[in-house]
Amino acid sequence: MRALVYDGQLRLESHYPGPVPTGDQVLLKMRRAGICNTDLELVAGYMNFHGVLGHEFVAEVIDGPAEWLGQRVVGEINVTDGTCDLCQRGMPTQCRNRSTVGIFQHQGAFADQLALTARNLHVVPDAVSDDQAVFVEPLAAAFQILEQVKFAPSDRVVLIGAGKLGMLCAQAIKLTGADLTVIVRREAQAAMLHQWGIKTALQVDLPAARAQVVVDCTGTPEGFAAALDLIEPRGTIVLKSTYRGAPQADLTRIAVEELTVIGSRCGPFDVALRHLKAGLIDVEPLIEARYPFGEALYAMQHAARRGAMKVLLDF
Amino acid sequence: MRALVYDGQLRLESHYPGPVPTGDQVLLKMRRAGICNTDLELVAGYMNFHGVLGHEFVAEVIDGPAEWLGQRVVGEINVTDGTCDLCQRGMPTQCRNRSTVGIFQHQGAFADQLALTARNLHVVPDAVSDDQAVFVEPLAAAFQILEQVKFAPSDRVVLIGAGKLGMLCAQAIKLTGADLTVIVRREAQAAMLHQWGIKTALQVDLPAARAQVVVDCTGTPEGFAAALDLIEPRGTIVLKSTYRGAPQADLTRIAVEELTVIGSRCGPFDVALRHLKAGLIDVEPLIEARYPFGEALYAMQHAARRGAMKVLLDF
Repeated sequence: MRALVYDGQLRLESHYPGPVPTGDQVLLKMRRAGICNTDLELVAGYMNFHGVLGHEFVAEVIDGPAEWLGQRVVGEINVTDGTCDLCQRGMPTQCRNRSTVGIFQHQGAFADQLALTARNLHVVPDAVSDDQAVFVEPLAAAFQILEQVKFAPSDRVVLIGAGKLGMLCAQAIKLTGADLTVIVRREAQAAMLHQWGIKTALQVDLPAARAQVVVDCTGTPEGFAAALDLIEPRGTIVLKSTYRGAPQADLTRIAVEELTVIGSRCGPFDVALRHLKAGLIDVEPLIEARYPFGEALYAMQHAARRGAMKVLLDF
Repeated sequence: MRALVYDGQLRLESHYPGPVPTGDQVLLKMRRAGICNTDLELVAGYMNFHGVLGHEFVAEVIDGPAEWLGQRVVGEINVTDGTCDLCQRGMPTQCRNRSTVGIFQHQGAFADQLALTARNLHVVPDAVSDDQAVFVEPLAAAFQILEQVKFAPSDRVVLIGAGKLGMLCAQAIKLTGADLTVIVRREAQAAMLHQWGIKTALQVDLPAARAQVVVDCTGTPEGFAAALDLIEPRGTIVLKSTYRGAPQADLTRIAVEELTVIGSRCGPFDVALRHLKAGLIDVEPLIEARYPFGEALYAMQHAARRGAMKVLLDF
């Protein structure tokens, strides 16, 4: 099968060995996939991952139990043991023995076929298109913020890092009724957010009133430093991205201002699907380009452009 | 009056101008004071503070309204405006326009007399000795952890930095019934903790099971790094100290393991007094030395020794 492989260098293989389902795995035939910043980080060495990349996808079940055959599905990326104490305590995405699709010890979705445990599958309702379904994984991660942090309607909230994940986070937070402002660099970002009724501010024109919650989707040391400048005493900073290296952090300020810093990772797929089905989250404007899978290398280059939004791969 | 002054250098003045109470201030005659690590940090340049040091004390009211005259009191260190939005929203210790006794724009307690707003005073019950009363300020800060973080009895909790503040935090956390282990470097620390029924572990012999809550009382980058190694996914790290400089912090780990990092500062004086009165917190073993105030410079040197516990100043 075709597969986009990284093993120190990135290449598109045309005769990569197809996966053979084992245990409770079903065989998926890929329909569409999306390129995430994490894919770009992996190619830069993050997690020392070698193998088939990709974890945002919608696919069709082509081999497996009768109840799954022919279903159009999305798949959770954390493959868990179900038995460790964290799984048993209701934190399966933090499973101690997890592998992660296309990120850690598990084949990814940038290939014609993928074998994945049926436990991770969610059927995509007819009302949700393939384009929308590709966004279920990052949208679930966006909703994870709401699983972790209470947003009061009277809270001032600032989001920094209005990229493809930040745009989903902004829409999810908007639903809470909180007083949200997104910091933008470019007019195109502002226009997109305004069409969703979300306020924006330029970085040079930061809001005077500090926020009760700052969501940092930048994954940069500068982003975290900006978050500290934007947050109210006793406020909450949400870290929604991984960071390269170990940035310096003003821990004294966290202590003296009694700030809360909380990390946020994978989220609930059912919530994401429900909101897409209900038309409450708009993903179409986030699609910047689509490539046939045979042009995946170009697609990765496109996705790496500064400010690029979602790049899709069609199988 | 006598006063321990820092203005770039530390010296004991014998004819420092006595304070003149204004507004709702009363005049306090110092009885006993304690040296805090923050005093040592201030002498090392923290906050660029110049003036009379000291913020842990018990004193007698010698000038002021009749209801206060002659009372033995402790005093909260945050002098607030009472009108800013943070005061109005129930966060007076984070007041936007606060001064802080002996730390920021307010005379400190290492002097024969101190003028302090009556709003900050708490009467010390007869059952609480002067020695105990000196610990009210740091003990209140210890209880602030319990104001901020829920400790379940089934939680594994690890405290690192078993100094004078850490010992108070350990006793406060012990009251919650959580499964507490304190990391120690020296046998004397372990012996003290064991007499309170608190488990200890050596740094080289860390507990295998990670903790749901780690309290970092070290104020060092190494302490924060150790906290990250000791914490469970989705666990909470409490920052109970200020840190020199801006240490490197593994923000990616905070994001991926969905950790919560929360800063903790000043706490409730009434809670501290109530627990001292009830005999639930033991401070006597923490007193390492006492000096007459005339020997305050020696007392500061003593307090700066590695591993020193509480050094008191008698007036």
